[in-house]
Amino acid sequence: MPRINGQRLLDDLKTLRAYGATGNGVVRTSLTDIDIESRNWLAERMKEAGLAVTIDGIGNVIGRSPASGPALLMGSHTDTQPEGGWLDGAMGVIYGLEVARALSEDPKTAGLGVDVASWMDEEGTFGICMGSRSFLGQVPDGEIARAKDVDGRGMAESLAKAGYAGRPRDRLDPKRNPGYLEAHIEQGGHLENSGKRIGVVTAIVGIRTFRLAFEGAQNHAGTTPMPIRKDAGMALVRLAYRIDEAFEAIKGERTVWTMGRIALHPGSHSIVPGFADMFLQFRDPDEGRMERFEAAFRALVAEANAAGPVAISIEPKGEKITPTPMDEALQAHIAAAAEADAPGNWIHMPSGAGHDAMIIGDEIPVSMLFVPSIGGVSHDFSEDTAEDDIILGCQVCADAAARIVRGWKGGG
Amino acid sequence: MPRINGQRLLDDLKTLRAYGATGNGVVRTSLTDIDIESRNWLAERMKEAGLAVTIDGIGNVIGRSPASGPALLMGSHTDTQPEGGWLDGAMGVIYGLEVARALSEDPKTAGLGVDVASWMDEEGTFGICMGSRSFLGQVPDGEIARAKDVDGRGMAESLAKAGYAGRPRDRLDPKRNPGYLEAHIEQGGHLENSGKRIGVVTAIVGIRTFRLAFEGAQNHAGTTPMPIRKDAGMALVRLAYRIDEAFEAIKGERTVWTMGRIALHPGSHSIVPGFADMFLQFRDPDEGRMERFEAAFRALVAEANAAGPVAISIEPKGEKITPTPMDEALQAHIAAAAEADAPGNWIHMPSGAGHDAMIIGDEIPVSMLFVPSIGGVSHDFSEDTAEDDIILGCQVCADAAARIVRGWKGGG
Repeated sequence: MPRINGQRLLDDLKTLRAYGATGNGVVRTSLTDIDIESRNWLAERMKEAGLAVTIDGIGNVIGRSPASGPALLMGSHTDTQPEGGWLDGAMGVIYGLEVARALSEDPKTAGLGVDVASWMDEEGTFGICMGSRSFLGQVPDGEIARAKDVDGRGMAESLAKAGYAGRPRDRLDPKRNPGYLEAHIEQGGHLENSGKRIGVVTAIVGIRTFRLAFEGAQNHAGTTPMPIRKDAGMALVRLAYRIDEAFEAIKGERTVWTMGRIALHPGSHSIVPGFADMFLQFRDPDEGRMERFEAAFRALVAEANAAGPVAISIEPKGEKITPTPMDEALQAHIAAAAEADAPGNWIHMPSGAGHDAMIIGDEIPVSMLFVPSIGGVSHDFSEDTAEDDIILGCQVCADAAARIVRGWKGGG
Repeated sequence: MPRINGQRLLDDLKTLRAYGATGNGVVRTSLTDIDIESRNWLAERMKEAGLAVTIDGIGNVIGRSPASGPALLMGSHTDTQPEGGWLDGAMGVIYGLEVARALSEDPKTAGLGVDVASWMDEEGTFGICMGSRSFLGQVPDGEIARAKDVDGRGMAESLAKAGYAGRPRDRLDPKRNPGYLEAHIEQGGHLENSGKRIGVVTAIVGIRTFRLAFEGAQNHAGTTPMPIRKDAGMALVRLAYRIDEAFEAIKGERTVWTMGRIALHPGSHSIVPGFADMFLQFRDPDEGRMERFEAAFRALVAEANAAGPVAISIEPKGEKITPTPMDEALQAHIAAAAEADAPGNWIHMPSGAGHDAMIIGDEIPVSMLFVPSIGGVSHDFSEDTAEDDIILGCQVCADAAARIVRGWKGGG
């Protein structure tokens, strides 16, 4: 089995952090000057590792192994949130680089190919997973031409400034890359709470989000008797309570649901609200359960509408994301590697957040590995992972990569 | 029994509306130029009715009857909300004027005194019921000196501009005025819904308002499992639901409760809220029931705090207003007058909103009479009452005033 170089891994991660560092965190949003500098640095490090490197027309940095035959595609993203953590995305990319180096340095694994990618804009500065979607042919030129960040900065202009505009955009070749492995920090507290060090991801959960609007009648809170009120706020409270109760009864082990936004109009302590709205979001790794959740809350809304007196409407918001199951064979290799490197110290778990693997999974088998997030924190400067866990995660990836590619080559 | 002049009553109301008219509604907030003009007009109309008129140091307009012996004090306010209805307040003042005229014009009632008042600023432009409180000696000079409207306009400067500053402030003499009658639009839909034309008010309800704050922990809605969440928003929904349930079980015939403001922080559809707050207000004519309501919701908060994981705190907001019972003897006279003028067409009912009568009730017996509000609307330009109802209400007041003053004089 290949041995990774933990010090080299940490050094590269810290060098990458320096591009946009703010304390322990990083500000390196897509296609800013500092992001482009970091891509050029990454491309150089890939070349030093013996990979053939392209920065394509959308800014994806892709390093391809010189080994013949199928190569495991590994990667994640190096762009960050406006106030990002240093490992979110970056760790998965540098893992790919270190695994490629470790395999090539060991004569027993030098023939096993690993390609490494940093996908542009996973954090959504310009759009949804622009880089990985482009790699699957899902981003027409017009979408890039129209894409702007919240400040009105255009993606096309930013690509031109970086010198990437006009370059061809790389496209996935499933024959060359029959599988994908993305390592990532967990972004939650499940590993930490369970005392385990490695998560073998079973699925990326599906997400459905709805806006519920309540149309009642605004009235004086002192002079409007209870029986004739059409209180949009109380209708919301009652429905939210019943949805929570219903979901509790049919939840799976990993279901989460959130009503994170509630607004009453006009929002005064002595006025009966005439209008209210709320957002309901739920996530689950199982599409059948997602269907049951949607049916359950729609039934409660229908029941409330039949009872009156407030009229409730449902509007789906954003994309309906179908759960992405991780490939069973790839999971088995990662689990075997985890058991070898951290016996008893790993678990199967779903990913509650979305990742590029969700996109890549449209065409080839995909897999993910998680390491613990300290305090479950992410999308914050204070996001962090213990160095031992960072190193262990990479070692498991290296072992898994060797097992996976050997399997493809019939040497498994 | 005296006969009022319905046409003169309506003419006066419409002339008063012209001061600040906006369509059917009025903008005549306290101590604006148009409010001062309307007070000067009102003082002139009172003089023409044979009353001795004072506009005092806080702008109260008070017209006193030339009749000897005790006089019924009648009144309300002529200032309006920023977007006010034409009858809210104004009707009660012009009723007093018309009743004083009607009694003085009929030789059989000419000896029965009615004093008429327009109390400054019932609508709270500068403070809480400034005029009626001043009349009871409850407003120190310093409060006037500090009082400002939302735009920073000072009450003292406005009084000086009007020429009222430096005048003495009138003070209630309970010997001269052993009772008070305030007529008002209902500001709710109870009369209209019950098909009755006159409400004899039994009490002005008490009001208690509380802010409840929920301290949880903000988290990622995708990666934070349900069992470890500290969701401030769901804690709010559950408590609000249980308060509503508990209040429903112990409510009186006239209890109202309102949770008109709810806010979640940060208020995003994919973030578990770390903080939430809401306002709870309840009103009832019975102080004992108010106590039971407060005890019930405090018990639910204590129970929720014991269960955790979200910490809930309670903060009383604004003034705790004790219910003001209307005087039984005055009610009986008004009821007798209502039965004479509108047999079977009147009811007893509480007032859900506050009025100057609440203040005057601190020193002398008080009473109120309601006429229907079309559609239950008030504090809106569209507020209105059928002209027949306006005239009927004034006739009942005239009859009631005659009965009340005769009673005091031993002639009843």
